[in-house]
Amino acid sequence: MKLVRFGAAGAEKPGLIDADGQIRDLSAHVSDLSGQALHPAALAGLARLDPATLPLVQGDPRLGPPVAGTGKFICIGLNYADHAAESGMQVPPEPVIFMKATSAICGPNDPIIIPRGSEKTDWEVELAVIIGKPAKYVDEADAMSHVAGFAVTNDVSERAFQTERAGQWTKGKSCDNFGQIGPWLVTPDEIADPQDLAMWLSVNGQTMQDGSTATMVYQVPFLIHYLSQFMTLHPGDVISTGTPPGVGMGMRPQRFLRAGDVVELGIKGLGQQRQEVIADPA
Amino acid sequence: MKLVRFGAAGAEKPGLIDADGQIRDLSAHVSDLSGQALHPAALAGLARLDPATLPLVQGDPRLGPPVAGTGKFICIGLNYADHAAESGMQVPPEPVIFMKATSAICGPNDPIIIPRGSEKTDWEVELAVIIGKPAKYVDEADAMSHVAGFAVTNDVSERAFQTERAGQWTKGKSCDNFGQIGPWLVTPDEIADPQDLAMWLSVNGQTMQDGSTATMVYQVPFLIHYLSQFMTLHPGDVISTGTPPGVGMGMRPQRFLRAGDVVELGIKGLGQQRQEVIADPA
Repeated sequence: MKLVRFGAAGAEKPGLIDADGQIRDLSAHVSDLSGQALHPAALAGLARLDPATLPLVQGDPRLGPPVAGTGKFICIGLNYADHAAESGMQVPPEPVIFMKATSAICGPNDPIIIPRGSEKTDWEVELAVIIGKPAKYVDEADAMSHVAGFAVTNDVSERAFQTERAGQWTKGKSCDNFGQIGPWLVTPDEIADPQDLAMWLSVNGQTMQDGSTATMVYQVPFLIHYLSQFMTLHPGDVISTGTPPGVGMGMRPQRFLRAGDVVELGIKGLGQQRQEVIADPA
Repeated sequence: MKLVRFGAAGAEKPGLIDADGQIRDLSAHVSDLSGQALHPAALAGLARLDPATLPLVQGDPRLGPPVAGTGKFICIGLNYADHAAESGMQVPPEPVIFMKATSAICGPNDPIIIPRGSEKTDWEVELAVIIGKPAKYVDEADAMSHVAGFAVTNDVSERAFQTERAGQWTKGKSCDNFGQIGPWLVTPDEIADPQDLAMWLSVNGQTMQDGSTATMVYQVPFLIHYLSQFMTLHPGDVISTGTPPGVGMGMRPQRFLRAGDVVELGIKGLGQQRQEVIADPA
């Protein structure tokens, strides 16, 4: 099942994608894709609905992030060996955790906004895991039972803010519209192996990232287990699992985003995103 | 005005403290202390109520955090010169930002929970600033108009998780019950100068921290201005502004918390907290 949230920012409604790729309105069955509605049992209930009985959504509405009520937007750093190498860093002996502000979350096709003073805004295609039921001290073997689904994320990153502005990466990871999620929340039954998904990202049509979750160092069940040793994961929490090689920071010469650029990215089975890059209108 | 949220965790009601120090129930006037209810104009409306007309809350209910709907729990690192010195670090050339998980937030007298595997759980009394209206690219001169109020926080920290477990502080800052806030949200009209507030923390009756916000390096208006350059601050966001000297990590020998310890802390005009330290019951 592919779930979406459609409509204006802050007023999205829940929907699902039918066999023809059209959006069906779920709002008579669930108020939003947040909290207990993300429990695997609740999602199984939605999967039993006949899409033909749901109102067809007309037109081509904006898509929001396919999950609401996200309390934590946790990212894993340097989780692809080749990306660590291009960043000039070692693969860490255990996962590196950092947080993006949840206020950075936006829809899959919402613009990338270059913050004031930025010269090093960069891209990162990532596999996101969306938590469906609380997880604390979970075993790796049980970890996947806590997952609501998967999605594409763009972990947009300002490299100067991240690494040249006095410690801790949060500063370069949390700007508004630095966290596109979607288009869909795809339930685990549709993903045979989350560690074998092709992923790619292009800028102005030129492929920049062309990787696979197969080369992820710390894999999804371990990450859920690991994070749950430090804090309770709650429904709606998003874990973005790191990026493969090909970010602008790693190029020689380096290449960063400018207003007018167009970024496209996707993961096999999880859909794709398209973002225009704009100067901050604020 | 001193605002509280009282009742069981997850089911708190809003209230205010009357001239006799008793809780008056505000739930007929505001659904919760979150979002637009934190706008300074909305708080001014509550301040015009006659407390005697509000239901008196009987008994001695638990207090929750005095703010709800917190999207970001932002902390400033090494923001007291003496604390940086005791940590063996330099005062940074600009503020160090990191995030605590919002799932760490709890009431002012809720226990400090020692996470599994922890041997270095530590304390940090801090002045928290609670945002009342959105702030993006705000001038320092205008920054305080975005503040709903102030509160005491305990930025509980696991030092091994923070600094010995592969990069980024979030891991040692985000455990469940690592963020006591309260007892009150105190509106700015009651705080003549947020940069002249005595603050203290004791463990088992022994004073460990005895400082003042007067020695803060980057002060509150600058911090709001600074953070707003990187991300929009939203109502309910909490900025914890750093801790003065006297944390366990800085002692020789080092001193960390053990189950059975009692931590008390406070800031002049903002009330005090009391926490029992317990092993993780999970």
